[in-house]
Amino acid sequence: MLILLELDAPRKDIENLKSKIILHGCTPHEIPGSSKLAIGITGPTSNLNEDEFHLMSSVQEVVRVTKKYKLVSRQMKNEDTVIEFDNAKIGGRELTIIAGPCSVESREQIFEIAGQLKDMGIKFMRAGAYKPRSSPYSFQGLKEKGVEYLAEVKAEFGIKIVTELISTSYLDEIASIADIIQIGARNMMNFNLLEEAGKTMKPILLKRGMSATVEDLLLSAEYILAQNNYNVILCERGIRTFETSTRNTLDLNAVPVIKKHSHLPILVDPSHGIGIWDKVPAMCLASIAAGADGLIVEVHSNPENALSDGYQSLTPQNFKQMLNKIKQLAPIVDRTFSL
Amino acid sequence: MLILLELDAPRKDIENLKSKIILHGCTPHEIPGSSKLAIGITGPTSNLNEDEFHLMSSVQEVVRVTKKYKLVSRQMKNEDTVIEFDNAKIGGRELTIIAGPCSVESREQIFEIAGQLKDMGIKFMRAGAYKPRSSPYSFQGLKEKGVEYLAEVKAEFGIKIVTELISTSYLDEIASIADIIQIGARNMMNFNLLEEAGKTMKPILLKRGMSATVEDLLLSAEYILAQNNYNVILCERGIRTFETSTRNTLDLNAVPVIKKHSHLPILVDPSHGIGIWDKVPAMCLASIAAGADGLIVEVHSNPENALSDGYQSLTPQNFKQMLNKIKQLAPIVDRTFSL
Amino acid sequence: MLILLELDAPRKDIENLKSKIILHGCTPHEIPGSSKLAIGITGPTSNLNEDEFHLMSSVQEVVRVTKKYKLVSRQMKNEDTVIEFDNAKIGGRELTIIAGPCSVESREQIFEIAGQLKDMGIKFMRAGAYKPRSSPYSFQGLKEKGVEYLAEVKAEFGIKIVTELISTSYLDEIASIADIIQIGARNMMNFNLLEEAGKTMKPILLKRGMSATVEDLLLSAEYILAQNNYNVILCERGIRTFETSTRNTLDLNAVPVIKKHSHLPILVDPSHGIGIWDKVPAMCLASIAAGADGLIVEVHSNPENALSDGYQSLTPQNFKQMLNKIKQLAPIVDRTFSL
Amino acid sequence: MLILLELDAPRKDIENLKSKIILHGCTPHEIPGSSKLAIGITGPTSNLNEDEFHLMSSVQEVVRVTKKYKLVSRQMKNEDTVIEFDNAKIGGRELTIIAGPCSVESREQIFEIAGQLKDMGIKFMRAGAYKPRSSPYSFQGLKEKGVEYLAEVKAEFGIKIVTELISTSYLDEIASIADIIQIGARNMMNFNLLEEAGKTMKPILLKRGMSATVEDLLLSAEYILAQNNYNVILCERGIRTFETSTRNTLDLNAVPVIKKHSHLPILVDPSHGIGIWDKVPAMCLASIAAGADGLIVEVHSNPENALSDGYQSLTPQNFKQMLNKIKQLAPIVDRTFSL
Repeated sequence: MLILLELDAPRKDIENLKSKIILHGCTPHEIPGSSKLAIGITGPTSNLNEDEFHLMSSVQEVVRVTKKYKLVSRQMKNEDTVIEFDNAKIGGRELTIIAGPCSVESREQIFEIAGQLKDMGIKFMRAGAYKPRSSPYSFQGLKEKGVEYLAEVKAEFGIKIVTELISTSYLDEIASIADIIQIGARNMMNFNLLEEAGKTMKPILLKRGMSATVEDLLLSAEYILAQNNYNVILCERGIRTFETSTRNTLDLNAVPVIKKHSHLPILVDPSHGIGIWDKVPAMCLASIAAGADGLIVEVHSNPENALSDGYQSLTPQNFKQMLNKIKQLAPIVDRTFSL
Repeated sequence: MLILLELDAPRKDIENLKSKIILHGCTPHEIPGSSKLAIGITGPTSNLNEDEFHLMSSVQEVVRVTKKYKLVSRQMKNEDTVIEFDNAKIGGRELTIIAGPCSVESREQIFEIAGQLKDMGIKFMRAGAYKPRSSPYSFQGLKEKGVEYLAEVKAEFGIKIVTELISTSYLDEIASIADIIQIGARNMMNFNLLEEAGKTMKPILLKRGMSATVEDLLLSAEYILAQNNYNVILCERGIRTFETSTRNTLDLNAVPVIKKHSHLPILVDPSHGIGIWDKVPAMCLASIAAGADGLIVEVHSNPENALSDGYQSLTPQNFKQMLNKIKQLAPIVDRTFSL
Repeated sequence: MLILLELDAPRKDIENLKSKIILHGCTPHEIPGSSKLAIGITGPTSNLNEDEFHLMSSVQEVVRVTKKYKLVSRQMKNEDTVIEFDNAKIGGRELTIIAGPCSVESREQIFEIAGQLKDMGIKFMRAGAYKPRSSPYSFQGLKEKGVEYLAEVKAEFGIKIVTELISTSYLDEIASIADIIQIGARNMMNFNLLEEAGKTMKPILLKRGMSATVEDLLLSAEYILAQNNYNVILCERGIRTFETSTRNTLDLNAVPVIKKHSHLPILVDPSHGIGIWDKVPAMCLASIAAGADGLIVEVHSNPENALSDGYQSLTPQNFKQMLNKIKQLAPIVDRTFSL
Repeated sequence: MLILLELDAPRKDIENLKSKIILHGCTPHEIPGSSKLAIGITGPTSNLNEDEFHLMSSVQEVVRVTKKYKLVSRQMKNEDTVIEFDNAKIGGRELTIIAGPCSVESREQIFEIAGQLKDMGIKFMRAGAYKPRSSPYSFQGLKEKGVEYLAEVKAEFGIKIVTELISTSYLDEIASIADIIQIGARNMMNFNLLEEAGKTMKPILLKRGMSATVEDLLLSAEYILAQNNYNVILCERGIRTFETSTRNTLDLNAVPVIKKHSHLPILVDPSHGIGIWDKVPAMCLASIAAGADGLIVEVHSNPENALSDGYQSLTPQNFKQMLNKIKQLAPIVDRTFSL
């Protein structure tokens, strides 16, 4: 951190500032210049809060030059995090595919799609039992019934379940069946939920909020790692911009940026990202080409009659075609894809 | 709602579509044109989900022409909602001021500022006991201790308490002392929290999310009203844009837009909105001039040493000067301000 | 400027860096820390380009701590710029109102509205002869004919003309009749146009681009001042965000920010900013309350039949009512309004 | 287009509206509903301006349901536009690569890089002689000297020149040497420049503005096609969002959206889009995977000493490695790449 003072700042202000820095266990370094006086600060600067310094006498600017997150950072752990399941890994060279409908709609629906996915060799199925919806009048999921069907389908097909936790009230229920607990974009900054989900030690799939910067996403992940749960999978799913021709603006730039700064795996959800089914396969390919560790894709046996997000869902046929392209693409980006 | 089909859509597709519309209790109207066939839909169209129609055969576009919210709308209730307290009202002609520090920092701090606010005639004090912070390493509030101090200060000064609920885990604790329960921007789409807070029947101050549209904000409020709790106060507090010279972009346009579409009171929080204390008074005046029902302002006896948000807090002196301007402004916008 | 190196950067890299800094007339200061080595730079750092340093060996981060603009800055000229006309000033205590239709539509139309404005005491009329429109199929203005009518109306009523220059091809034509040359939002970064317009030494009204930061706007103004033309009036007119309930997001935060950093006058255009006529008066008041030096308002005798922007135009009656409010508001924000 | 009226709109208002519609050569269709009266409009609705209808008595909403652009649309011309050069094509199955430095810096520099590109088989070189820069104090290009060097390099190597036109003042000069005239992001809405450049009948590379929607970009292209110049190449180069970890947010979603709606070729410029050289190759691959017709990449023999944009430029070695990946990727997305 660096603090800039007026060149003629009184000695008293300078000493006050230096005392405050030392108080927090850091070391101040005076750097006189021709138009300003800078105080460089070294040591554990994450103890310091810019706010504390902004208002002090003679201070003109406070500049933070290091990252705010620690545990998620490559500086703490350089090698990629790989999350291990009995028959799968997320985060290594092998690409991961999570697929399934937006929500559990009926026992028949979820059994049908689970069977189709299983036949394709898909190991992780996504499906929401509790759905967060902008409008209270939209379909909110089958709730307990949905969880029950997910338990049945898991027992039947041995497919791993990725399902969303929308409130700590449902924590035990969701944790009992989920192989990966999903935290949705709307709850990315629901820090209490992050902490409670983290404490289960289950793998957590953390989706980027609609207006979250990459740094915000990494800080939210930090909340989970701070519970000693390092099994976090990040997910880019589109941000809000002025563009209206797509549902969101899928930000693939986040992929190489996150890969550089963090050891955590990053998946991409093009279904929510672009939001129009016939453009989803192109964005799936682009995601893997950009370096993502895998995809989350909405697949529905009958998108026309889906109770939610049908417009962005692929049919099993279209999904399979897309996977074939991914298979060809994998080696070009130094990946394996054993599907 | 209006659905556009290709002009040569097969009769079967048209009839399928019409059946589906009728199934939802609505009425379809065929409108043939020279390049497209339109199906106009009347009746309870909020039953319909655009998603259901997008993927049907021959459908080219689905256009929603009515609002998705109901209870918050002026069409349901034309007169302004006024929330009544024993010695105050929020939402009528009288302007409301909620002031106080970002967080409870100590017993001394909160007693000092509460006394100062009380002396100025302020009836509502804001102060967080539980603080949602982007970084797990930032100060998170005094928690239970903070709630305890708020209870004491309320008993001592009779000032009304506005404090944030960040999780249903703290619902009873917060509800026991809060006169108004605040839902922060990060939780605006934490729908379960909205519902549970709503059920207390306490007034709820609902802050706009950083990337929430006005419609999103109204839909989130709808979740609370749907619990039969009509005591909702909306709050504009800045959105995320590309601009970096201010903390957020305080969107005062939202004020006249909300006033037109909803009967709920709308306050503005310029402290978080612009985020730089010396520019807060200008934005306070602008907020009232734009038609807001009042303000939420961060005031701290000693901003230089605040544990959070000191940079955007006014001193009691600066706050008092600002209030004097508001007093002069009130009659120009047909408001009273009895402070 | 500050450059951060790895702590164990080889001496050769450090010396290379320092030579490059000295080459540009600046002075490097080594500041060793516990985890990084910082090089503080003083002197004429605006000569330096961050790009040059980013890629040098051992460099980790480059941090610019001073502003990029000079002539527009209060550091160069502390007192407010006041632009003088024979019977008016822009930029002092007196508020400025520029009003008129989006475009000149006919001789009758422009004479009618000019007469109405003159009767109200308005000294500056806006009206476009050349209109930049997103679609080539929209009305593009009356062009030469429009300029001719503006010349006539100016001669007849003695009202000052504010009209847009969209290309250097029309520079002489526009300069011959304009008292203030307007540069529109779409051309804010058409730097050649800024320079050529600046060379006329006429006052220039520079509108903020739809995605321009405040810093970008000030840098564009700097292009004009660099021609020795200090008669620049800035104008906030709304930026692009994800919000769709208003035409643009009028960013009133820009007003106090610009007032702090620059000596140039700043006007606000709420008509384009919010884009819905019945919400324009509220935003006019808010603009003045935020500290703007005046307003640009679209006024049309017959908005229902306007050829462009009718939806955001006030009738003369509504405009007059708004002005009455402004008159009452002016003294509260230490302004005079002699209308 | 569809216009919604209050259900009890007086007959006079309805007839006025219908007359106005008929006046513009369109046909109105009354569609009575249970809560509103809709008027569906068919015929040449691009003649109609929403603004004209918004303010008419009894009108509640105006909804446009068809696109505003024509000539750029697949509805006008279904097959992909292919722009033919003597030894190259842009827009067909074959991928296009345009590479080179941000700006011409010296005769030596441009000859060196042109030779390197030529050796790799690159047919199109980008390099700016006139550079639009946010700050008047940044390097603005070598101007006439730069054009002269480009002419020499073209004669020497037979490489095709892509260079930016920033003002109609330089039209003849630029047109004399450019094989493709580039219109930069800052000038995307400089419509006069678009028209004048279009009239040369040279191929035009049109970059998307920083806050332009896909529709805006297509409408700007429409200005060129309206000059009967169909040789337009679109270019995605990043938009402005709240994210600060990348220079811009490269919006790859635009690629499949544009491919669906327009027959024009679309290239991607990841160098400006993400703005950090070590993340450029990942975004190059992602662009082609998303369906782009090619790339524009900044390549500099010595990025550390570039006068502009060095931070985002690849070295010839890195560029070559990236091309090798593209070569492998091409057949997967049904492309050829004969480099």
